[in-house]
Parts: sequence; C-alpha cells; structure tokens
Amino acid sequence: MCQLLGMNCNVPTDIVFSFTGFAMRGGHTDTHHDGWGIAFFEGAGVRLFVDHQSAVASPVADLIKRFPIKSKNVIAHIRKATQGQVALENCHPFVRELWGRYWVFAHNGDLKAFAPVLDGAFRPVGNTDSELAFCYLLQQLRRRFGDSAPPLPDLRAALGELVAEIASHGVFNLMLSSGDALFAHCSTKLCYVVRQHPFNTAQLSDEDVSVDFAQVTTPDDRVAVIVTEPLTTNETWTEFLPGELKVFVDGLPIA
Amino acid sequence: MCQLLGMNCNVPTDIVFSFTGFAMRGGHTDTHHDGWGIAFFEGAGVRLFVDHQSAVASPVADLIKRFPIKSKNVIAHIRKATQGQVALENCHPFVRELWGRYWVFAHNGDLKAFAPVLDGAFRPVGNTDSELAFCYLLQQLRRRFGDSAPPLPDLRAALGELVAEIASHGVFNLMLSSGDALFAHCSTKLCYVVRQHPFNTAQLSDEDVSVDFAQVTTPDDRVAVIVTEPLTTNETWTEFLPGELKVFVDGLPIA
Repeated sequence: MCQLLGMNCNVPTDIVFSFTGFAMRGGHTDTHHDGWGIAFFEGAGVRLFVDHQSAVASPVADLIKRFPIKSKNVIAHIRKATQGQVALENCHPFVRELWGRYWVFAHNGDLKAFAPVLDGAFRPVGNTDSELAFCYLLQQLRRRFGDSAPPLPDLRAALGELVAEIASHGVFNLMLSSGDALFAHCSTKLCYVVRQHPFNTAQLSDEDVSVDFAQVTTPDDRVAVIVTEPLTTNETWTEFLPGELKVFVDGLPIA
Repeated sequence: MCQLLGMNCNVPTDIVFSFTGFAMRGGHTDTHHDGWGIAFFEGAGVRLFVDHQSAVASPVADLIKRFPIKSKNVIAHIRKATQGQVALENCHPFVRELWGRYWVFAHNGDLKAFAPVLDGAFRPVGNTDSELAFCYLLQQLRRRFGDSAPPLPDLRAALGELVAEIASHGVFNLMLSSGDALFAHCSTKLCYVVRQHPFNTAQLSDEDVSVDFAQVTTPDDRVAVIVTEPLTTNETWTEFLPGELKVFVDGLPIA
C-alpha cells in the first residue's frame, strides 16, 4: 500500500511542514520506499516532481523540503509497490489534460480484476492499477460531459458514481484535483484537519519539528490537509467514513 | 523568441554540462528570462521541471545543474515570451500522452494567424501558440494513425507534412520526443554536434567550464546535442537547413 497527502487552501500556501513529516514515511518512519511524487498547482499550471528513489533519499524531495512552493492545491504520494514494478512511469501523482485543464491523481490501494475497456483517449503509460483507474475515470467523465467541464455539483455526483464502481474492485483511496477543488475518496483510511484562525502550534509525529502557524499566516488563511494517517500529534484529525467522497474548496470540505 | 536544447543518446547520459551553459542564457549571457523547463525521459516515464522564474535565478535549475539525472532523451527550453503571459502553464516543454506514451514538445518561434480546429482530444491549458501547435500535432497524428503508434518512417513522414503545414504560419523550430527518437525541426536556427569515440575536451561558450568527455564516457557512448546556438567554442556544430526535420536515434541523425 501507499500513503496519500493532499492540501487545499484559500490562498497559496507552502506544504513544507506537512511534507517534511510525510516524506519521513518514505523509508524512515515507515516502509513506503518504492518512489514518491508531489504535484503543485500554480494557476492552471502544474509542477510535478516524481522519483523512483525513496523520499528520504531523494535529492528532489530534499529540494521540496527547502524550497517553499506556494499552491492552493497539492497532492503527494509515497509508494509501496503492489502492482507495477518500481519505475518512474509508475510513480504517482499522474497528470493528464481534460477540458483544457490538468488533472492530478494519486491512489492508495489495490484493485483486483479491474480491466475496464479504454477507448484510447487516455491510456496508461506504466502498468499500475492506479493509472488505469485514472485513465478510466477521465474517459468516463469526458463521455458523460462532452467537451466542457460541468458545474462542480454535477462533477461531484458523476465522480461519486464512478469511484464507487471502481471501488467495487478493491481498495480505492484517492485524491484528484484540476486546480480548483480537491476530491478525496476513502475506501479504508483517510483523515483531514482544517487549520484556520485562531492558529496554533502543530507538532509533527514523524519528526521532531513544530511550527507556530500564527506566526506564518494571516487571520483569513484557511488550509485543509488530508492524509492517510495523522501528521501531527496535537491536532484533532477527522476520519473519513469508508465510501466517503469529500470535496474541498478554499480550505474547507463542502456539503 | 526562445532557445531550445535537446539531447539524444545511445546510453542514459546526464546533461549537466550542456544545461549549465544553456541555463546561463536564461537571464545572464542572454535575455531569455520568462521561464524555463526541462524534461527527461527515464524509460517510459518523464521527469518534467518547469519554472516561470529565470533559469539563472531558479532553485530548480540549480538542482538540475547539481543532480546528474541520466536520460537517453532530454528536451529543454528557456523562454522569452512572445505570445502568452509569464506563467507556469506557458512554460515549455509541454507533455501529453498519446498511444500510451508521453510526448514532450518545446518550440522556439512565433506563429501568426494559426487557429486550427481542435476536436477536444488535446486542448491547450495555457495560451501560447506553441502549446496550441503541439495539441494540433498530436490530434492530427491520432487521426491519421488511429489508436496505435506507427513505425518510425511513417511517423517521420507524417510529422514532416504536419510541421510544414504549421510552419507556413511563422517560425516553428521545435523538438519532440516520446522517449525513443528525438525529432528536431528547423525554421530558422538549429544546430547539432555528435560526441563519440574518440572523445575530446569541450569548452562552454557561456561559462568558463570545460569537461574532458574521455574521462566520463566509454568508447561505445554516443550523444547528439541539438541546440539553437552552439554551446561550445571548440567543437564543430552542424547547422540545420531551414525547413529541415531531423530524427535522432541512439545519438545519431538517421537518414
């Protein structure tokens, strides 16, 4: 299995604190050492960093920990291979373009007997169940909505159905974003915290690092962090229910 | 206008030496300071680094200069904006998937009155003429060859026609690769050098750096470097003819 980390904010925010703890699980405090990746939206553009080295050993991960890239939507992943060999093309997140927007996807889980018919519009480059599921998702969205992006409620409803269909094949914890909303689906394990005014000090669970968010924020800032296992020891993390698809916009889960 | 750099090799090779000189043109020895990017194939996977900062000021470019990523096909670009604002989504190279392979594209030039009809399969995310041309190229390749990649000679012939059609709208120097061959088309300015046994010392023109390739290669290695303006002062660079499309495989232009 793998681990997922997502961040959705109302203003561009850096993920250095959360990623520092998360990356420790990529070979140090946990065994997810078969590659890692992180994607940052900046406007419509995406910065994608992937590496088949473990996150603790990767010079690129080191750069991310030192270089504060600010983004409203970030998706990160550390991999423990279940399907597909250890190779760059099998590292999450995956990126494809649909409706003139980049879509970023990462998955934690394992799909069995999942062999959807692909029409060729989106084809996997690697050989993971995850990239296959992503290609199928985008194909079905395009089939349903044609050449333009639907309003968010319609997209959410369609994703709810599609994700449930794929999740019938196994464990399908996922994160998906095209730069506005961040979609997070829980099969087995996912939790989140919303950080907002009044901000407090947070203490990482995977490394001896803490940060006083009051010193680095304004009272209007709001940040949702979504992750497989809580990243801090002194914040209240809300667990997702199995089968739940949450949509985060401007740092909050929306109803 | 912008500048292009490509590398095609018979064994995975790092581009640190060439990129070091090339990056100096991104704001130091030349004025291409509106972003930059570089894409490395590793097997079927791609590492893409893009930044809207100038290459001389970018911490990511600094990482590339220090971290020897080995690849058989690399495409890099430094941007001086002509169409499209300075933004991450307008930085080359662009990446899309076709036929289950990633395609990497970068362009130097300026297309006028270029407004092809897109069917929705590939749509630009940013607003450059370059990304539009790339989307049109891939769309037309898919229309012509359907759902599977054609043999290289057929692909080359099709690209020759498509590139000539697009180049009728203006300057269209480009590099394109899906990880095996590297295609390079010259409208106005492009040159290349093939480095092979016996290797010599090369001296960068943009920085006081030289390398003795005999010390870092084996006799079987072969590397083609393709670039807008020669990168070294003591090697013989071959100029492309205007309108020429060359295909590099295993470090050599093929007939």
